[in-house]
Amino acid sequence: MAHYVPPLRDMQFVLQEVLDVEGTLQQLPAHADLNLDLINQVLEAGGKFCAEVLHPLNARGDHEGCSYDPQTGDVRTPAGFKEAYAQFVEAGWPSLNCDPVHGGQGLPQIVKTGFQEMTTACNQAWSMYPGLTHGVSEILRAHGTDEQKALYLPRLVGGEWAGTMCLTEPHCGTDLGLLRTRAEPAFDGTYRVTGSKIFITSGEHDFTPNIIHMVLARLPGAPEGTRGISLFLVPKFLPDANGQPGTRNGVRCNGIENKMGIHASPTCQMEFDGATGWLVGQAHQGLKAMFVLMNVARLGVGTMSLGLMEAAYQASVAYARERLQMRALSGPKAPELAADPIIVHADVRRMLLTQRAYLEGSRALAYWAALLTDVSERHTDPVQRKQADDVLTLLTPVVKAFISDAACECTNLAVQVYGGHGYIVESGVEQLVRDARINPIYEGTNGIQSLDLLGRKVLADGGARMKILGALVQQFAQAHKDSEPMREFLAPLEATGTLVMECSLQIGARAFENRDEVGAAAVDYLRLFSHYVYAYLWARMAQVALGRGDDPFYAAKLVTARFYVQRLLPETRMLAARIQAGGKNLFEMGAEQF
Amino acid sequence: MAHYVPPLRDMQFVLQEVLDVEGTLQQLPAHADLNLDLINQVLEAGGKFCAEVLHPLNARGDHEGCSYDPQTGDVRTPAGFKEAYAQFVEAGWPSLNCDPVHGGQGLPQIVKTGFQEMTTACNQAWSMYPGLTHGVSEILRAHGTDEQKALYLPRLVGGEWAGTMCLTEPHCGTDLGLLRTRAEPAFDGTYRVTGSKIFITSGEHDFTPNIIHMVLARLPGAPEGTRGISLFLVPKFLPDANGQPGTRNGVRCNGIENKMGIHASPTCQMEFDGATGWLVGQAHQGLKAMFVLMNVARLGVGTMSLGLMEAAYQASVAYARERLQMRALSGPKAPELAADPIIVHADVRRMLLTQRAYLEGSRALAYWAALLTDVSERHTDPVQRKQADDVLTLLTPVVKAFISDAACECTNLAVQVYGGHGYIVESGVEQLVRDARINPIYEGTNGIQSLDLLGRKVLADGGARMKILGALVQQFAQAHKDSEPMREFLAPLEATGTLVMECSLQIGARAFENRDEVGAAAVDYLRLFSHYVYAYLWARMAQVALGRGDDPFYAAKLVTARFYVQRLLPETRMLAARIQAGGKNLFEMGAEQF
Repeated sequence: MAHYVPPLRDMQFVLQEVLDVEGTLQQLPAHADLNLDLINQVLEAGGKFCAEVLHPLNARGDHEGCSYDPQTGDVRTPAGFKEAYAQFVEAGWPSLNCDPVHGGQGLPQIVKTGFQEMTTACNQAWSMYPGLTHGVSEILRAHGTDEQKALYLPRLVGGEWAGTMCLTEPHCGTDLGLLRTRAEPAFDGTYRVTGSKIFITSGEHDFTPNIIHMVLARLPGAPEGTRGISLFLVPKFLPDANGQPGTRNGVRCNGIENKMGIHASPTCQMEFDGATGWLVGQAHQGLKAMFVLMNVARLGVGTMSLGLMEAAYQASVAYARERLQMRALSGPKAPELAADPIIVHADVRRMLLTQRAYLEGSRALAYWAALLTDVSERHTDPVQRKQADDVLTLLTPVVKAFISDAACECTNLAVQVYGGHGYIVESGVEQLVRDARINPIYEGTNGIQSLDLLGRKVLADGGARMKILGALVQQFAQAHKDSEPMREFLAPLEATGTLVMECSLQIGARAFENRDEVGAAAVDYLRLFSHYVYAYLWARMAQVALGRGDDPFYAAKLVTARFYVQRLLPETRMLAARIQAGGKNLFEMGAEQF
Repeated sequence: MAHYVPPLRDMQFVLQEVLDVEGTLQQLPAHADLNLDLINQVLEAGGKFCAEVLHPLNARGDHEGCSYDPQTGDVRTPAGFKEAYAQFVEAGWPSLNCDPVHGGQGLPQIVKTGFQEMTTACNQAWSMYPGLTHGVSEILRAHGTDEQKALYLPRLVGGEWAGTMCLTEPHCGTDLGLLRTRAEPAFDGTYRVTGSKIFITSGEHDFTPNIIHMVLARLPGAPEGTRGISLFLVPKFLPDANGQPGTRNGVRCNGIENKMGIHASPTCQMEFDGATGWLVGQAHQGLKAMFVLMNVARLGVGTMSLGLMEAAYQASVAYARERLQMRALSGPKAPELAADPIIVHADVRRMLLTQRAYLEGSRALAYWAALLTDVSERHTDPVQRKQADDVLTLLTPVVKAFISDAACECTNLAVQVYGGHGYIVESGVEQLVRDARINPIYEGTNGIQSLDLLGRKVLADGGARMKILGALVQQFAQAHKDSEPMREFLAPLEATGTLVMECSLQIGARAFENRDEVGAAAVDYLRLFSHYVYAYLWARMAQVALGRGDDPFYAAKLVTARFYVQRLLPETRMLAARIQAGGKNLFEMGAEQF
């Protein structure tokens, strides 16, 4: 497997030069004294941990996988994983962006996001263990009682205990309204939770002495469907009087799945059998509370996908520089060697630049979303908070779906750059393809993300959020309208904006007649909309780089921006044609005709 | 894993109604008495063998894989594989399309292709064992001496012995000019072959008592590069006086690769250490001889990819009909159930129809190419033979590259239809993704196929072959120009033809200035060109189906044809935009800037 070098310079480019993180954070009292030096130091130390501790475990973890003991219900993680987690906790990484009130370090989400990119680039399976713990502490922070907060938050924040989210059941994934797990009230104010959950990431493992499950279940007499679902906290071990793991609770792992990838992350079948649980938030409001975690998780999937793209890109470039094969069509470029390195070939460059353009565009997007999270939570001005939240709401399905699809494409391109060697496990790149393939599926499939964007976030609010985003784009375009060199980036950006607007109106009109038109257009619409966002971010990156073309770093940014505009953005023409075709054709066949 | 039903009706549709196989074959004296009934009987029996014998072994083979014994150099195949091969030989399947002179059944290539689709749909890894044996016998038939033919052909044709092709070495895959394996002449007219080969499919196994390797190597004093490569026949066991496996030859398997997929197919490192070999064909003409096999293999990769798409489609449809989740956006479709089957959702239908349109278009293409093979080899009129060969030559890279890319897309769509369940090994669909991923790589990567199409087969002959294809399309369009219902298929076909022509001329003009422009455009051009071919084939299928819309089978063909035109063909707009952007942007970064 290729070496991993934390992409600190590229991260700084986005943080400092594109997003002006320092200036933005200084408007938030909680982070007013944070400066770029400190952020860079944290990311540098984080990158070192990821490259030195997590990366060497990645291929081994894939090969060894997790093992399940049917006698005890225990799950053993691959060699070295537990020790890496201990180092992670020891160094304080779990609490990076947690509230200092609960023992956190109070750093902004954007720093956490940069760190998360690197943990996933080095080891997606490992990074999934701590991934949900933070989400669980966020739910408790938002919806927990004071007792729950006092008992659980310090342990979750520090990574001493781990957390899970238990939603899916064998017969219900997307459609949570069908869920059957039930919670019966006990005499002491607790509940007895009974039911079967599947696909529970880190449902059981040997990292921590306790695991805190967040379980969706129905109270007796609850309304049917999604309005009758409540959220329960169910610890693996009931905390004793000292807050230490005490009596074993009635929850057990019944098996782990054999999966395409992320072999080192146990995907657990969990059986709750009269397990003691505590209600979190209000009865029947469980989905609302869980959505705190879902939104965090969806942004996290985008960041994880970004990490995989970086790993795949680094591996591809290293191989393309080193592998000698054929001569350039325009004549030998390395006549002293037996053949030219394959990086001279146009099609290899096309594959590398495609990766690079999606990778760097995705980094700008994921970091922007993280910064919007910080502003939406911490700005003193409610108008600013609301605006950041509106844009973030709109971008969340793009971060989740477009970046995870891009990661599938780019990791597959890495395999193609390697040729036959990429199909061999030893290369490390085929693992990235297998690991990346889960990202378009979990935390709401990308089809569901598309419906969320088009149905809920564009059509349902009559385009109000779109207008806010459009104003940001307009403001940027206006500021640089007199710059001749910016025209090659601004003209396609504006054309894409127009196309998005036309398609939105057209779909809206059709959906008025037939709701199925929303589903028929959603996936293509999300991609079209995403290109609008990427065209905006690439224009911003190009603007920063313009005039600094003497520096190879900025020159490469400009080349990549042009590649994006010339070679990837034209997908919008295909997408618009598909959307314009409408949904009628999809419904002309009966189920039996397929 | 979902059940597999041999798609006999769909196969017949293409064979009989679209391609008029009976009428075409009756013009070939060798097949003049072949009728559709016989073809259907063979395919029905073949389908039964595949579904009953090969399909149940597929998931087990993936799980168990092959094992290698470093002591003996032996490779053990998964349980049941050897027995299935014995049944296959017993039933005479290996010799389906072989020359009766050598014990073959003399059926046309198109029947073999239909059978091969089904073997791969049921078990790609298994189907690779006999896959190359036929190619080896084709080389011997074309280039072997009479002694070589007499000794080896009957055993290869009947499947008693197996064959391999040994091209790749650790430092050379695409670039065979770099190969180092050498062959020293011995006193008795044989050669001593020495060198290391990698990625040798079925290089060692326990199916047959002998394995015949076709090895590329250099004679002493051979010219450098590809003009100094000769082809040698190197048996694992030297045949004794009775033609039975005798003395063990100096060739040994040094290990097998651990791969992303096709686990049940051993990918061998082969060490030749003074192995006795016989020259096949003329000295230094080895690549030319090997190309007989390469072309067969490339068409085979397309057919295999077609099979995987059929398997993925059948699994997707079965799951989409059965899985209950959510209600249709336009209101409940199965109110009596807890939720609607997911086949009611527009986006699920989009995924199924995408699979179906690529699948059925690919079947039409692969079968057409097979029929062209038959005509090019057997027609009595040399003009007809030449025309068929010209079109086949043009279509071969399309069959290899476009179908294998489509299979990657479609198997991934199958996983997406299954959602989280698709990521689990048990579903069987993730295996299809892993197995399909090799197809765009081996037998010349899809990048190489694209260069072959654009560079050698379109530009190098000044568009002569393109004109022949264009005339066929024109003839079809002309014949149906007055048909109002055909307009929705013919208009986009003609527009695509115009686009292909414009892009070809534009690239040609640019390439005149800079050869790298060919590499810069090749992959996009192959896709554009492929859509032209698919648009033609879908128009032909639509034409057959038109007017029979009362029959659900034909109605479904029309719906799928429309879906192809409305939703998939618009990719040409993106491709043309990319091609028009030219290659300059690809070369603006130095290797160190990536």
